[in-house]
Amino acid sequence: MNDKKMMTLADIAKLAGVSESTASRALRNNPVINQATREKVQQIATEHQFKVNATARNLRTQKSYTIAVIIAFDAKTQQSVSDPFLLELLGVIADELSLHGYDMLLSTSKRDDKDWGSYFLDSKRADGLIIIGQGEHDPRVEALAQTQVPFVVWGGRSGDEPYPIIGSDNRQGGRLAAEHLLAQGCRQLVFLGDIRHNEIEQRHLGMLDACQAAGIASDAVQQLSCDFTAQDGYLKTQQHLFARLPELDGIFAASDAIAMGAMKALLEHDIAIPQQIALVGFDDIAMSAYCTPSLSTVKQNTQSGGKALVNQLLTRMQGQQPLSEQLAVKLLCRQSSLRRL
Amino acid sequence: MNDKKMMTLADIAKLAGVSESTASRALRNNPVINQATREKVQQIATEHQFKVNATARNLRTQKSYTIAVIIAFDAKTQQSVSDPFLLELLGVIADELSLHGYDMLLSTSKRDDKDWGSYFLDSKRADGLIIIGQGEHDPRVEALAQTQVPFVVWGGRSGDEPYPIIGSDNRQGGRLAAEHLLAQGCRQLVFLGDIRHNEIEQRHLGMLDACQAAGIASDAVQQLSCDFTAQDGYLKTQQHLFARLPELDGIFAASDAIAMGAMKALLEHDIAIPQQIALVGFDDIAMSAYCTPSLSTVKQNTQSGGKALVNQLLTRMQGQQPLSEQLAVKLLCRQSSLRRL
Repeated sequence: MNDKKMMTLADIAKLAGVSESTASRALRNNPVINQATREKVQQIATEHQFKVNATARNLRTQKSYTIAVIIAFDAKTQQSVSDPFLLELLGVIADELSLHGYDMLLSTSKRDDKDWGSYFLDSKRADGLIIIGQGEHDPRVEALAQTQVPFVVWGGRSGDEPYPIIGSDNRQGGRLAAEHLLAQGCRQLVFLGDIRHNEIEQRHLGMLDACQAAGIASDAVQQLSCDFTAQDGYLKTQQHLFARLPELDGIFAASDAIAMGAMKALLEHDIAIPQQIALVGFDDIAMSAYCTPSLSTVKQNTQSGGKALVNQLLTRMQGQQPLSEQLAVKLLCRQSSLRRL
Repeated sequence: MNDKKMMTLADIAKLAGVSESTASRALRNNPVINQATREKVQQIATEHQFKVNATARNLRTQKSYTIAVIIAFDAKTQQSVSDPFLLELLGVIADELSLHGYDMLLSTSKRDDKDWGSYFLDSKRADGLIIIGQGEHDPRVEALAQTQVPFVVWGGRSGDEPYPIIGSDNRQGGRLAAEHLLAQGCRQLVFLGDIRHNEIEQRHLGMLDACQAAGIASDAVQQLSCDFTAQDGYLKTQQHLFARLPELDGIFAASDAIAMGAMKALLEHDIAIPQQIALVGFDDIAMSAYCTPSLSTVKQNTQSGGKALVNQLLTRMQGQQPLSEQLAVKLLCRQSSLRRL
């Protein structure tokens, strides 16, 4: 397309008086190279209309400088694509990858590829994988653990998974939520969420811990399965919880979206929140502070989470052992649960 | 890594009794190839442990089978990453690209790359670009229009932009919202949104159209700039609108997130919605039906929008002229604006 003789990376490096590897990094704006050198190399490249052919470079280096992020997808609820929490996390990961000179290839677990290692790594589409989402058990993750493919998972640890998992301390979150409801005088609690998901199961177990510690009989703690949507929180509350009134006095929902759906149903039924029923969600999505009453919730740290995922993956790609991390959570008490005692 | 002689695509094609191009498409699961053929080729490839080296294939075909999606980013509000509407659209685009055998490379306009064509196309990172978001004027889009780079934009048409734009009929949306508020008896209206964004400006103009048609004096229609967040909707309502009570009787917000923030401020101030102030948002995000009162809004068609973006881009990549499209919107009347007249 261009009649001029094509400049090579070696030509640019020579003109800049640096090594080829430094020139290559400088062109990728890798912060490892000092800024003055980066700017110098980039300026020379611009002057000589040098364009990195990424595909050729990748064949040479056997790297794609791309990380595939796979969103575990719940085909039934489509939670993964629309849930505000996961999307916030995705934004942090994108920023962090960009900082390290990597592009982000976004995929969902809906792809029926049987073998992620083969699809992304062997084909050199990506150098590593980040798998996020509160999906149910996916055999493809287990299969990946048997390979040399670098990957990290966002989720909940349920046993001794042989791969690094970054996630919130969901059990502690459940404990904090339930302790708070009990401190507000609640005695008949319900958990609204699908405990087939690791992370949700942990939140439920934390709630049971707190109830047991407070001497609440286990049959006073009900669990009701619910998809990750406001719509299902609304429907399940209408269909199953109204029948349990007036005994029921506290709801802990597995996500803020579910909690907002439950809130809508309760308000339509003229149930006073928090006086009759106190309500706590999970995540602290942006909207939870702006509903009425504002929603008490357990805040997950998306900033730390996204950074930890990227940094542990890069650690693994450098041949070192990545570590699982459990991130601290924080209870935010708002109008939906704070009774005037 | 594998001692066996590597199978080539030609070998697989021969074994399957199809052409190389058919075999290649079948391996990418391209729906153009009938399912039986796809399954046959894929089975043969699996049996012979054939793995497509995507990078080598791409060098050969000069295609990356990847589309870059660039999210226009508002550095101040971070709207693009967290706004539920844009994220819903992103999900539809991801699904549609997958259907056509393309991967999605996600990027944000925060990258300080000066030249998107060079970064994504010349480097063969991507075969085309989809630019989404309600960003302010970005000179990089104008620059792109001077090149042969295939790209489409999600947004609002403000003049005679020399590139294909897919977007909602924002002006009609604004008109519908304002006509509805006027029909509910509102006479002192305010528009809450930043009209420096094309799409938002169109929504505001539609509102003015309706007011003019109804003989409302233009000084009875105020415009108040506001970021795309519930937080700013809340703050701007507190800071600027309370002073205008009790004259003010209708608010049209440029997004549902803004409307929910305004709703929160009004309810805290004990203003009855919709009796004292009727409120209409824009987008129909999932949460708008679940706040209390439920939010009236103008629904954008994300399904049609995402599909149109992908299909117009593929049209352009096949050397044909893509078309701009304006998608119909729909007014949804809920509790926040429906007065009992």
